[in-house]
Amino acid sequence: MKKSDPLVIFTPSGKRGHFAKGTPVLTAARQLGVDLDSVCGGRGICSRCQITPSYGEFSKHGVTVADDALSEWNSVEERYKSIRGLIDGRRLGCQAKIEGDVVIDVPPESQVHKQVVRKRAEARDITLNPTVRLCYVEVAQPDMHDPSGDLERLVDALQQQWELDEISADLSVLSTLQTRLRKGEWKVTVALHQAADDAPHTILRVWSGFHDAPAYGLAVDVGSTTIAAHLCDLHTGDVVASSGIMNPQIRFGEDLMSRVSYGMMNEGGADEMTAAVRDGLNALFDQITTDAEIDKTLILDTVFVCNPVMHHLLLGIDPYELGQAPFALATSDAIRLKARDLDLNLHPETRAYILPCIAGHVGADAAAVALSEAPDKSDDLVLVVDVGTNAELLLGNKERVLACSSPTGPAFEGAQISSGQRAAPGAIEHVTIDPVTKEPRFQVIGSDLWSDEEGFDAAIATTGVTGICGSGIIELVAEMRMSGIVDGPGLIGTAEQTGTPRCFTDGRTNSYMVWDGSADGGPVITVTNRDIREIQMAKAALYSGARLLMDKFGVDTVDRIVLAGAFGAHISPKHAMVLGMIPDCELDKVTSAGNAAGTGARIALLNRSARREIEKTVRDIDKVETAIEPRFQEHFVNASNIPNAVDPFPILSRIVTLPDVTFNTGGGGEGGGRRRRRRG
Amino acid sequence: MKKSDPLVIFTPSGKRGHFAKGTPVLTAARQLGVDLDSVCGGRGICSRCQITPSYGEFSKHGVTVADDALSEWNSVEERYKSIRGLIDGRRLGCQAKIEGDVVIDVPPESQVHKQVVRKRAEARDITLNPTVRLCYVEVAQPDMHDPSGDLERLVDALQQQWELDEISADLSVLSTLQTRLRKGEWKVTVALHQAADDAPHTILRVWSGFHDAPAYGLAVDVGSTTIAAHLCDLHTGDVVASSGIMNPQIRFGEDLMSRVSYGMMNEGGADEMTAAVRDGLNALFDQITTDAEIDKTLILDTVFVCNPVMHHLLLGIDPYELGQAPFALATSDAIRLKARDLDLNLHPETRAYILPCIAGHVGADAAAVALSEAPDKSDDLVLVVDVGTNAELLLGNKERVLACSSPTGPAFEGAQISSGQRAAPGAIEHVTIDPVTKEPRFQVIGSDLWSDEEGFDAAIATTGVTGICGSGIIELVAEMRMSGIVDGPGLIGTAEQTGTPRCFTDGRTNSYMVWDGSADGGPVITVTNRDIREIQMAKAALYSGARLLMDKFGVDTVDRIVLAGAFGAHISPKHAMVLGMIPDCELDKVTSAGNAAGTGARIALLNRSARREIEKTVRDIDKVETAIEPRFQEHFVNASNIPNAVDPFPILSRIVTLPDVTFNTGGGGEGGGRRRRRRG
Repeated sequence: MKKSDPLVIFTPSGKRGHFAKGTPVLTAARQLGVDLDSVCGGRGICSRCQITPSYGEFSKHGVTVADDALSEWNSVEERYKSIRGLIDGRRLGCQAKIEGDVVIDVPPESQVHKQVVRKRAEARDITLNPTVRLCYVEVAQPDMHDPSGDLERLVDALQQQWELDEISADLSVLSTLQTRLRKGEWKVTVALHQAADDAPHTILRVWSGFHDAPAYGLAVDVGSTTIAAHLCDLHTGDVVASSGIMNPQIRFGEDLMSRVSYGMMNEGGADEMTAAVRDGLNALFDQITTDAEIDKTLILDTVFVCNPVMHHLLLGIDPYELGQAPFALATSDAIRLKARDLDLNLHPETRAYILPCIAGHVGADAAAVALSEAPDKSDDLVLVVDVGTNAELLLGNKERVLACSSPTGPAFEGAQISSGQRAAPGAIEHVTIDPVTKEPRFQVIGSDLWSDEEGFDAAIATTGVTGICGSGIIELVAEMRMSGIVDGPGLIGTAEQTGTPRCFTDGRTNSYMVWDGSADGGPVITVTNRDIREIQMAKAALYSGARLLMDKFGVDTVDRIVLAGAFGAHISPKHAMVLGMIPDCELDKVTSAGNAAGTGARIALLNRSARREIEKTVRDIDKVETAIEPRFQEHFVNASNIPNAVDPFPILSRIVTLPDVTFNTGGGGEGGGRRRRRRG
Repeated sequence: MKKSDPLVIFTPSGKRGHFAKGTPVLTAARQLGVDLDSVCGGRGICSRCQITPSYGEFSKHGVTVADDALSEWNSVEERYKSIRGLIDGRRLGCQAKIEGDVVIDVPPESQVHKQVVRKRAEARDITLNPTVRLCYVEVAQPDMHDPSGDLERLVDALQQQWELDEISADLSVLSTLQTRLRKGEWKVTVALHQAADDAPHTILRVWSGFHDAPAYGLAVDVGSTTIAAHLCDLHTGDVVASSGIMNPQIRFGEDLMSRVSYGMMNEGGADEMTAAVRDGLNALFDQITTDAEIDKTLILDTVFVCNPVMHHLLLGIDPYELGQAPFALATSDAIRLKARDLDLNLHPETRAYILPCIAGHVGADAAAVALSEAPDKSDDLVLVVDVGTNAELLLGNKERVLACSSPTGPAFEGAQISSGQRAAPGAIEHVTIDPVTKEPRFQVIGSDLWSDEEGFDAAIATTGVTGICGSGIIELVAEMRMSGIVDGPGLIGTAEQTGTPRCFTDGRTNSYMVWDGSADGGPVITVTNRDIREIQMAKAALYSGARLLMDKFGVDTVDRIVLAGAFGAHISPKHAMVLGMIPDCELDKVTSAGNAAGTGARIALLNRSARREIEKTVRDIDKVETAIEPRFQEHFVNASNIPNAVDPFPILSRIVTLPDVTFNTGGGGEGGGRRRRRRG
């Protein structure tokens, strides 16, 4: 590089340098550390190194680019363009040679570390940096004068042609290596695995000749109820297909605690459950590859996130210890292994990565949420709530992140609610109650019409109104509180107290009639005072977890709240706040992150650096165990009130005025019930 | 450490330092880097740290050791001595504390890196430095205030109590970790694997409490015909048991080439052979552990040596390419994997190490011979010959080592010899022929009596005289040459020419009658001229390989010769030299190394540093491919003569005068036959 040589400026990186005439653009890019892709190593085969030269005057760069700044099209480029086509203005970086000062743009699709844009405005993009890359090499033939193994010559070729360090290969690669090399006439494409930027490489696969199919990865969220997988193209970062199945372990118990118990009560029970979830994963992977019409053996990396019990059962570890204090994990760190170690019927060299667990009941799924929502990178103080049977909470900012879990129980999923049901067509999901007439109107899943709108009966003719789902019960109870049907301590008033015949005496307490479908043979849908109690306990558990983290952080308010989890996506922030389920916060600062655990898995799949990052984050997180925090009980009692017995909700008060009603006539009933359940 | 503190001098290392009063001897040893063993980490349980203090005046060290130089016996020591006993004068290094200037001897059995003395005078001792060590640790209990996995706390304990770096564990350890820790009340003994001094550690096994049983290793020589294994105690280095079986692959072909062919001719044939050898190994390991009465799961390391074809078949690689030029190995480097990757039914975490191959037909067995015989450390020039179906030769000294293989064929094993047989009772193994009467006398395997001694008939009554084994045919042909029955070019004379009726016309050539057992229904044992030709070709191949290496080295003589291999142990150096099978050399400089390949495997098993050493040696060895060396043919033709057509054998001439006979009457016959076969 002499100063008299042509100046080459790459955009968007801005990297620049002088190169001798005749230097291929790809070579210049490599020497400057510009992110320009290549699989074939500059042989004009893969076309991954496409670049766009710019001509004319560039005052900001201080150069003028002449029309002949790059070499004429050569036969390789011409041939490539005629057969495969090239966007106008594009050149192949390995063929075009520098002849004069030039400005060269590297389009996003030619970058190895391209950005995968996330849909949510507040979410950071994902930088592609997968563990798997493809490299085409030409291998020296065996020489009797200098005998060496085929593998050693392949490794030499990779090291020299790709400037790589340590490279190894396992048995399954060795067993087919010799035929692949000879069939490809000593030209092969190799899939290399590198766990981290500074880790050694491992050969995962060898294809004869130039191999152009992408490598794929799976991001898998192994939940207690459902298992969901995203099939991703590791080169583009695209989600090629997504699919889910019920977790086959459900037959051993609906919730986690009953599965832990199953393992305790049945000899070999944990092994049975391990086999079941692995079988389920295999079925899911078959399904997703069939849907996407891809060769399953092209899946070379997998990432798993799961709660601690699923984590242990997936790994073949009896989750017994997680069922009792002190909730000791067998291992909490991230785990790197081969997918076949988990009995997964993928390519024998396919890797598996399991995110670290944060604590005994804050699992790898919560770590994945932390990776996706990145509270540790937030300037403002964010509370991330993953709402499920067990809620995991993260509170923090750039300075510090705290985590805990709280045993909300299944009420938020519609379970243990008299008219509750899973979110399915026919379930009431949105509700308003007229504050004057106390008449409800609602929407059911499967129809956009409200129940008082014309055509509602026809719209729900096939499904009927079947029950109340999790988000529905939250809105319903909140609306009952807002319309004065329920008081702060959670008692439903009588017809006289509330002024509506929909309230009726139901044993020792009162219930509220939402829908009477009995005329059509359908259900009578009511909210009982016991239902209110269930919701109170669930929301109190959630709130007191959040409140405890706020105590530890030394704050009384948070700047924003992210609701994660599929259920979180359907929660109405206003109603959640009326319930006192989440801390007081500006409504537009309460957002939904959707399946953040699944997104976190996808980030870890697409970006190996994110793995080290979340491993560090998890180590740094301050773990709070709610079970042994004395203030948790106090917060829980206060949070049993709707919205709260002591905490003010000033922001909420500006939007909603809650009626000051009291229905306690001194009879007691179930009032103030303080039943707790743990985990599960 | 102040100068005023007591001075502690360790022997035999001579390491010395000042230590504050009250410092345990073990602590002082560790700080000085003195090699003092411990499994329990200084808790007075394992007794591995026994030391012998010396009292009185030590003028050479300049100290006087007072009687109270060490602390009084404490209760731990007293208790240990009363229950387990201690040799007089011994103390436990972890309990005895320094109170004054003292000289402390570390007896060999208290050293980690103790020496295993080899029986042969010229062989170097083996320094114990196995990949597996046991460490007893006390692990912190789980704490809800600071949640972490059991594994992470175990790793912390190991790192702190044993000053170790990176430690990891695989799934099989994780699945039982929690119960083991709790059963041992958070005290466990861990078997750690470390592939090399600077490599990370892996947890292989965890035992509850203090575990005192040794860890074992297997050194395995997988030969074409037999598989032999040595079971070694990894702490003492002792060979606890040795055992061998026939290689079950024999049913696919006696020699290697026919096995390569079997793989070519039969779909799945290579896989069948892989399964057969692995099954054989499993049977052998069952047998050896039953014989030794040890728990098979205590075997935690294994080392394998084998020729290239067996190497590939063991690994599950089709050896097809090894059957044809350029004899390309799939891989030549050393291989580190788990024994279960080879379908071996050992503990799931048991490791396997396979030595590197030198070239396409100079395998890991030859590398093991190089490790055992260490030509690369020899001051004088040594030729190491591993005699088998294929002979591997190493020639070198500290400056340089050369290697080649030479296709001797199976004649030296008694095959393709008309009266040949394997070495077994009844086989002729030693022979002399009276130079005047031309009468033979011989010994057979199973009796020490010579055939002309009284009682011979009775001694061999059960076995009979059944044939001639490999070492027998070498002596016989050499004796025939020495007694003038065979001439230099290898022709057997007629009865007239030799003056003995034992020579008789047998088709177009003559044969020599060794033994006529037909009267008793036994065989008639003769040496035909075709037998002589077979031996000539075999010995010519061997010699010309050696000669070629000498050419490359630029020498005409070697300083010493080591005969390796079980067969090599039975060869008479004088007879081998008369045959011209090995170069001219002082007879007392021709020694047998026995099963040097097996010894090399044992060295690699007991000393992990030896693994890196042999990997480097193998890389540095200059490989010579006889098949493409033009001079090999020339040497071969010359070496067909007995002993040689051109090379002088001056040292041999001083001992033996060979009769100058010529039996070629111009008829030709098979004279000078130059059939070659390759490999196998």
